[in-house]
Amino acid sequence: MPATPHVEKHFAASASVRDVVIGMADGLTVPFALAAGLSAAVSSTSIVITAGLAEIAAGAIAMGLGGYLAARTDTEHYASERAREEWEIDNKREFEIAEVRDVFVGYGLQGDALATVVGAVTADRARWTDFMMRFELGLEEPDSKRALTSAATIAASYLIGGLIPLAPYFFAGSIAQALPISVGATGVALAAFGAIKGLFTGISPIKSAAQTLLVGGLAAGAAFWLAHLFG
Amino acid sequence: MPATPHVEKHFAASASVRDVVIGMADGLTVPFALAAGLSAAVSSTSIVITAGLAEIAAGAIAMGLGGYLAARTDTEHYASERAREEWEIDNKREFEIAEVRDVFVGYGLQGDALATVVGAVTADRARWTDFMMRFELGLEEPDSKRALTSAATIAASYLIGGLIPLAPYFFAGSIAQALPISVGATGVALAAFGAIKGLFTGISPIKSAAQTLLVGGLAAGAAFWLAHLFG
Repeated sequence: MPATPHVEKHFAASASVRDVVIGMADGLTVPFALAAGLSAAVSSTSIVITAGLAEIAAGAIAMGLGGYLAARTDTEHYASERAREEWEIDNKREFEIAEVRDVFVGYGLQGDALATVVGAVTADRARWTDFMMRFELGLEEPDSKRALTSAATIAASYLIGGLIPLAPYFFAGSIAQALPISVGATGVALAAFGAIKGLFTGISPIKSAAQTLLVGGLAAGAAFWLAHLFG
Repeated sequence: MPATPHVEKHFAASASVRDVVIGMADGLTVPFALAAGLSAAVSSTSIVITAGLAEIAAGAIAMGLGGYLAARTDTEHYASERAREEWEIDNKREFEIAEVRDVFVGYGLQGDALATVVGAVTADRARWTDFMMRFELGLEEPDSKRALTSAATIAASYLIGGLIPLAPYFFAGSIAQALPISVGATGVALAAFGAIKGLFTGISPIKSAAQTLLVGGLAAGAAFWLAHLFG
């Protein structure tokens, strides 16, 4: 079906930008909060760096590989539901015809018009199955070719996001020097990321930047407070 | 529209179980990998506990609050797209009628049947808007009442998942004692979680358990190796 311009814009953005947003939102937040939290409890930058790198590796693998396997499960789930619909069309034909009818009754069709439409949709087995998948189950066919690219994009975005708060600890001589640079750099990155995300998702960049800063700030604040308590 | 039994089962499970799965998958994996990684680099259980608690707090807030704000954005996005469709129906009526026609042409309708169906769908403005939202834009109305419950469920699941690998460090006297207990307990928890997740998502429990163990094992292995390198 032809898409109106705003739709095309919406969908062109969603595939790859969405993966970057998913990875970077957590990548900027969690390693930042961990580094800030540990800064309240330990005296050596090397422990912050070690913990930060371990967290970034773990988070990137959990999000990337976890996301890849989830996408594969979705593809398998779609295939098995589709096979089930095909079986039902072949073996419980009247029941499936009634389901098509119910969809159109919901849109106000009745009488001859209803019968004609139901007849047209159920005339072709492949098209009928397509119809059931989308209108009855609400399932879109997953794009299985994108799963690997998507997983790699999410993992790389997490990695890049996570290295921003951690970088100052590599170069500063002490935690007292590194923490304010890390907070400042990550604050700027979170606000910029939130604003750009707002442009893509269609909400106000200022509001989106404020939300991203809020999540990062609360996460870092809670981590700092907990680490201070137990450290 | 009436749902077949397998659909109802599918959807009943998805709402709350999906939130637990999302939170626990990362909660069992990332704090576990961080604790295992730090065990390769530091000599005191208190640093592992401090870093672990900081990470769990940060991760739970990032996933819970981040998820809540994302759900609110979805609700706003749906409302603004719906207002746009309503505007288009009022002001670009012929163009929108052609879009409805294209949807049904795609399902093989033509001639009088096509005209009748298009007439029926476009006869009622609210129903017509519903149709455009679902079939042109592929957007379902988000359940805004669930956003808060969903966020809290995800955060709590992350917290509970994260405390399993960390608990041994509270009670064991040394890292050498805590690490094998943590690996064993988390391995059992990851496998059990994967198997139960498999039952809900309809894939083989053994395969699902193996996948969950693989993600957790690789994340922990990478964190351990990196921490060993830098620690």
